[in-house]
Amino acid sequence: MYRSHTCGELRHSHTGHEVTLAGWVQKTRDKGFMIWIDIRDRYGITQLIFDEERTPQNVFEKAKTLGREFVIQVTGTVIERESKNKNIPTGDIEILVTDLHVLNTATLPPFTIEDNTDGGEDIRMKYRYLDIRRNPVKDKLIFRHQVAMQVRNYLSQQGFIEVETPYLIKSTPEGARDFVVPSRMNEGQFYALPQSPQTFKQLLMVGGMDRYFQIVKCFRDEDLRADRQPEFTQIDCEMTFVEQEDILGIFEKLTTHLLKEIKGVSVDTFPRMTYADAMRKYGNDKPDIRFGMEFGELNDVAKGKGFNVFDAQELIVGIAVPGASEYTRKQIDAIIDWVKRPQIGANGLVWVKYNTDGTLKSSVDKFYSEKDLAQWASATGASPGDLILVMAGGADKTRTQLSALRMEMAERLGLRKADEFAPLWVVDFPLLEWDEDTARYHAMHHPFTSPKPEDIALLDTDPGNVRANAYDLVLNGNEIGGGSVRIHDSALQARMFELLGFTKEQAEAQFGFLMNAFQYGAPPHAGIAFGFDRLVAILGGQEIIRDFIAFPKNNAGRDVMINAPATIDQEQLDELHLVVKS
Amino acid sequence: MYRSHTCGELRHSHTGHEVTLAGWVQKTRDKGFMIWIDIRDRYGITQLIFDEERTPQNVFEKAKTLGREFVIQVTGTVIERESKNKNIPTGDIEILVTDLHVLNTATLPPFTIEDNTDGGEDIRMKYRYLDIRRNPVKDKLIFRHQVAMQVRNYLSQQGFIEVETPYLIKSTPEGARDFVVPSRMNEGQFYALPQSPQTFKQLLMVGGMDRYFQIVKCFRDEDLRADRQPEFTQIDCEMTFVEQEDILGIFEKLTTHLLKEIKGVSVDTFPRMTYADAMRKYGNDKPDIRFGMEFGELNDVAKGKGFNVFDAQELIVGIAVPGASEYTRKQIDAIIDWVKRPQIGANGLVWVKYNTDGTLKSSVDKFYSEKDLAQWASATGASPGDLILVMAGGADKTRTQLSALRMEMAERLGLRKADEFAPLWVVDFPLLEWDEDTARYHAMHHPFTSPKPEDIALLDTDPGNVRANAYDLVLNGNEIGGGSVRIHDSALQARMFELLGFTKEQAEAQFGFLMNAFQYGAPPHAGIAFGFDRLVAILGGQEIIRDFIAFPKNNAGRDVMINAPATIDQEQLDELHLVVKS
Repeated sequence: MYRSHTCGELRHSHTGHEVTLAGWVQKTRDKGFMIWIDIRDRYGITQLIFDEERTPQNVFEKAKTLGREFVIQVTGTVIERESKNKNIPTGDIEILVTDLHVLNTATLPPFTIEDNTDGGEDIRMKYRYLDIRRNPVKDKLIFRHQVAMQVRNYLSQQGFIEVETPYLIKSTPEGARDFVVPSRMNEGQFYALPQSPQTFKQLLMVGGMDRYFQIVKCFRDEDLRADRQPEFTQIDCEMTFVEQEDILGIFEKLTTHLLKEIKGVSVDTFPRMTYADAMRKYGNDKPDIRFGMEFGELNDVAKGKGFNVFDAQELIVGIAVPGASEYTRKQIDAIIDWVKRPQIGANGLVWVKYNTDGTLKSSVDKFYSEKDLAQWASATGASPGDLILVMAGGADKTRTQLSALRMEMAERLGLRKADEFAPLWVVDFPLLEWDEDTARYHAMHHPFTSPKPEDIALLDTDPGNVRANAYDLVLNGNEIGGGSVRIHDSALQARMFELLGFTKEQAEAQFGFLMNAFQYGAPPHAGIAFGFDRLVAILGGQEIIRDFIAFPKNNAGRDVMINAPATIDQEQLDELHLVVKS
Repeated sequence: MYRSHTCGELRHSHTGHEVTLAGWVQKTRDKGFMIWIDIRDRYGITQLIFDEERTPQNVFEKAKTLGREFVIQVTGTVIERESKNKNIPTGDIEILVTDLHVLNTATLPPFTIEDNTDGGEDIRMKYRYLDIRRNPVKDKLIFRHQVAMQVRNYLSQQGFIEVETPYLIKSTPEGARDFVVPSRMNEGQFYALPQSPQTFKQLLMVGGMDRYFQIVKCFRDEDLRADRQPEFTQIDCEMTFVEQEDILGIFEKLTTHLLKEIKGVSVDTFPRMTYADAMRKYGNDKPDIRFGMEFGELNDVAKGKGFNVFDAQELIVGIAVPGASEYTRKQIDAIIDWVKRPQIGANGLVWVKYNTDGTLKSSVDKFYSEKDLAQWASATGASPGDLILVMAGGADKTRTQLSALRMEMAERLGLRKADEFAPLWVVDFPLLEWDEDTARYHAMHHPFTSPKPEDIALLDTDPGNVRANAYDLVLNGNEIGGGSVRIHDSALQARMFELLGFTKEQAEAQFGFLMNAFQYGAPPHAGIAFGFDRLVAILGGQEIIRDFIAFPKNNAGRDVMINAPATIDQEQLDELHLVVKS
């Protein structure tokens, strides 16, 4: 036994006990005749004291040689501290050391192992195993584990069965790009890593497994954007003999349970919004509803007043920023500069100050009377004290831009509070979206999503307007889950593949096993998948998922710690019958 | 809502209730004026009754059209059954149906969906989603889930944190063959899928994470033997500041907990045996100790008696098969044929009947007196009524053959009972094994395994005799877990790589990140990994792991249901800069 206690365990009640601890040297204070050392492990920090008078000479001398991050084992007596440290649980005591073993030495780490480290992102990724010693990283990994346990236990109690689906599956050209795995035993053939267990969970439903779930790694070989990982974790769920309403109900309860157990937050409403409404009111299919600033459309009240810039536009739309009427010219210019950034790409914006005295003052007073502006205020729901910001242009683009501005203003005003949680279901997504590049429809969710029964007739006449039985769960402006009622009729599934531009042969080659399975008594079924990395981050009050992953990859898909990917031996390539083109 | 109750839920107390059920048509009995249909879902089976008198005409007619595995929804009243079925929980009641919807039709399945199906292995694998509808398969998947939940909750309660390690890692030439994943974004480079999270869990220990676990998929591209899968699941664990004794203690408790919770079996002893003893006494490093038949070595008592066949051999060794002294000549011949099978490869065996009257009769009476044979009986621990079976030859080969025979005899005698559990630790494995082909040492466990401190001096003089701090947990003759104390000293780790024939450059290229990590204060650490598929199978009273995997691959590594692996598009190959050699 290397230790009798952990470094987070000893309290005043242990005074007088002889104990043995093991851990890392966090900090040394050497006063010559007295040395204090903080020893750290996963569980906490304990202060050690070496005293010229009371510590054996050789132990005292050895203590002087210890460097940061040395791994040591000490034995000593728990004594009460003279100056207590109220900031740590072990702050009432210290260990008067009588014996010391150096279990391992340590080279000076490339950054400090402190909550606020001096190490930059790159160096911390390269030495991730040192970064994990820091509380902010370690605590996030423990938090992730706790969320996973809560999810598993809750779903298991609801009768869900976790079934492991395979990782070595088959590549499908639909959707994102697959990672593939050459097969040595089947020359010239490849497995693919799953982008999700979608087809397997549907086959489990055909297999009568009913309530399935899995916390599972998924893979997408996409060009990485910031905070997107080539491998990511999903909470994947599927049920039989259910309709949309059943799924929403069960996963509201899961979300409520997690918020309660993990955050101590009670959430009692899960508002619902159609995709169409979300786009119209927030310019976004995952609106953050913790604050207002709903879009007000101004076409009726802002056109035809001689302001040519507006007259020609498809959409004029504004938001009322609460309590911002006293922004200075400089502050407003900063906002204008912000919307002109290439990432946003607006030409500018029009502003109206709705002063606390009820007067209205705008950047377009030349064209609009106060009475006109009062109509704008009414349309955007502005009150005295608000600043109305208005953008104009093509409808889709302008909504997207105003949505970004809305979020930015909320950030600046501190309205996106880490401890406030507002879930929202977005429903009635379009089934299909038109892709200009390939001149064909794509499945907005995936090809197995069921159209709404009342819209099925439109499949022939107006596919673009068919709504799907699809739903997203949005939390604080982040999509944390999404799913749909699935097609369980093989004829409808075949029609869907046809709409998506598959030939019969392609559909057969790719999804033949699924369509075949549907012949043998496929039950109605529906499901949902949560992005686990994001869910954990949001629950942790953050939006950067990378911090909640033990060994993340960088934006080029590299693990800089182990230096992967890397070249492989010629022998390996030969066995796989592969040649790398140079 | 498709149903008010599941098909396993209704009892006598529901009599008179109106209910709605949904499920699959299991069986129809049509008596003309009366039709009984069994409806099935994940939860059970309920009997439906359609009655010419009491069921609406159109519903009655529709019931006549239902085929096996049709998916139906029925509404009706719960009534008491005239002839109760005590074999099923719903056997007291039936549903008098008033409404019937066909949710989906079904083509006749290629095998019967019954506990005892008429389908062979191949067809059931191809239509695995139909096989899963059968109780024996479905129940095993649910059982697997329950074991996983028990493992996670137990380890979590013991302070273990489940940390997800990456799947896209780096290929290492040591050990089994890796599956590799070409990187599109890093031309000519490959990720590898993990054979185990070994190095990551060690880095987590360097990172101070202490008690880590993970139930995780691992991958090995090996030529498949029966019942070995290219992807398999492991319970992977690692701890810091522990010695071998701590690990054995904690994982004994986990095993005891599982046996208790899952099987209701109390196990109070975990005997320990050295690798050397296991090989000598059982010819096997994973002996089944639920029964005796320990090896008795007969060199001293069987040589020099004129039986030339024995005199020339390295080892003469036998077992006493309990209660088999009355085997007929035919039965004994069958055993002799069995050991001559190519899989065993023996030339034959010598037998001695230790009759119940105390007399001894053998196949070599010409050379050995009853007094000689009594010495054999003593050496093999035989009692009157036993049959002694003796083999001879090269020591290693003969032990292996006799071990196989011991297991076979136990099977024949019914000594391998599915409900009896006898765990065993095998300890003190050799650190290295000599490989004739490559003429170098290989790590018996893996290159990170620590030698026993007292044997470190032998590393220079006699590496083949160095024992490792390595241990296997054996349950009923199956290795269910194995692990070791790891090397945490970078100099010793470097020495180990050298012994294994790595050049400094190779070691640096492959494991540089680990050896580098060890510079920064690596704590003493140790771990273990359980083969989860096998553990679940053994707990389930079986030894075939495939039945406990939802979608297994066949012996050629193929998923015959989805037909993977498969060829991929030229476009995909081009993006990966790969050419398939023809």
